[in-house]
Amino acid sequence: MIKQDKKKIPIVFIGAGNLAVNLAQALFCSGFEIMQVYSRTEESAKSLAEKVNAGWVTDLKEVILNASLYIVSIKDSALTELLQQIVSGKDGALLVHTAGSIPMSVWKGKTTRYGVLYPMQTFSKQREVNFKEIPFFIEAAQREDVELLKAIASVLSDKVFEADSRQRRSLHLAAVFACNFTNHMYVLTADLLKKYGLPFEVMLPLIDETARKVHTLSPLEAQTGPAVRYDENVINKHLEILADEPEMKEIYRILSESIYKYKLCQP
Amino acid sequence: MIKQDKKKIPIVFIGAGNLAVNLAQALFCSGFEIMQVYSRTEESAKSLAEKVNAGWVTDLKEVILNASLYIVSIKDSALTELLQQIVSGKDGALLVHTAGSIPMSVWKGKTTRYGVLYPMQTFSKQREVNFKEIPFFIEAAQREDVELLKAIASVLSDKVFEADSRQRRSLHLAAVFACNFTNHMYVLTADLLKKYGLPFEVMLPLIDETARKVHTLSPLEAQTGPAVRYDENVINKHLEILADEPEMKEIYRILSESIYKYKLCQP
Repeated sequence: MIKQDKKKIPIVFIGAGNLAVNLAQALFCSGFEIMQVYSRTEESAKSLAEKVNAGWVTDLKEVILNASLYIVSIKDSALTELLQQIVSGKDGALLVHTAGSIPMSVWKGKTTRYGVLYPMQTFSKQREVNFKEIPFFIEAAQREDVELLKAIASVLSDKVFEADSRQRRSLHLAAVFACNFTNHMYVLTADLLKKYGLPFEVMLPLIDETARKVHTLSPLEAQTGPAVRYDENVINKHLEILADEPEMKEIYRILSESIYKYKLCQP
Repeated sequence: MIKQDKKKIPIVFIGAGNLAVNLAQALFCSGFEIMQVYSRTEESAKSLAEKVNAGWVTDLKEVILNASLYIVSIKDSALTELLQQIVSGKDGALLVHTAGSIPMSVWKGKTTRYGVLYPMQTFSKQREVNFKEIPFFIEAAQREDVELLKAIASVLSDKVFEADSRQRRSLHLAAVFACNFTNHMYVLTADLLKKYGLPFEVMLPLIDETARKVHTLSPLEAQTGPAVRYDENVINKHLEILADEPEMKEIYRILSESIYKYKLCQP
């Protein structure tokens, strides 16, 4: 996609959450024009708009109508609720959402050019990510829009795929396990260490190696620890230590059982 | 520690599991002499012994008595069971175990020079790890042996700490969450993706970024996803998809509740 083309696709962001902030910045830095940012709160709208040299509004009725691409990145429940207002007056433009969990059909019958642009990554406002390695999953109602979205995503990433709504839903669910639940394990680790007056940093080499391992071993092959060895002595000692932490104890018990079961039943 | 000193501490490994294999190889490659390897099975004993140019036995009674350091790295329950045989005839030598979960006091009254050498990492036989960044936690009954173990560990790693049995037990429990349970999240991810005909590799950028994030953000700050946003629409859709996977569904439910609770109750 050549430089002039990018300028021909002025973009509006509906939503200014973690994903929107990261995606808008990456598009802006790659030469795209971000015309406007909408967010419910002035603080978010303004903050993102300033970063990407765009205007901002907090009222959906004030969203400009002459953009080429509207990237809608808001909470799932908000999208359903605001859908009618979002599409209103934007015939001819391409409207996409960025949610793994929402089918493309949510747009159906509301507008003619629509699709999904789903970058599968964990985004935080405080942290820049390397877009080059982020898988983008694309879907659109019309073939030309699939190609357009692919071209746009390819400016940012080397990994652009087509995926239908069913596949994207599965990817999103899997990503909750791979990322959100994994990060929660780090949260529980940090909580335990804090209780014992030990610094979280001491765990980073272990966390890094655990992630690196599954680049070369399957997760089942990579599994270590008392549960996969069924070392009941250790498991019981750990459950004792967690006696006054009923929730953490329950998580420990359920995950240990699941680890052992996968080990037993692996082909 | 100078080269001659290393040669003055001939080592015997009791056990040839993942940790023993990695530690023995690292010590051997750093110039230490591994005299002998004991393992219950000939296959493991021989395989490790060949790698580190050592003799091997499968009968504890045949373990040589003139080594300076015995590194005992066997399942917790086996250690308790075999303790008497392990110490037998080795007065004067230093005996250490490598288990996070076993107190040093397990040796007490059985021999005079004893301790613990605990490298906190996930070890697999198929994979070499970088020992330089692995935290070693040291404990010994006698001050001179603390210093000796520190000197030995410092040859391998830049991160050598003293830790008593209580601290080590806490570290080990935290490591189960940071590593074993995290890896199980990867197992569940792989299982889901397989079911949908999607390759596990597509998740690696997300897994890597999730691990990298907690180098600069606290795990609580790093948390993203439907549970922390309390996006009930998405959570309910995911629970529906998991309807025929009762165990995975239960794990999803419990971890989502825990994520949301940590968010609510964070200071």
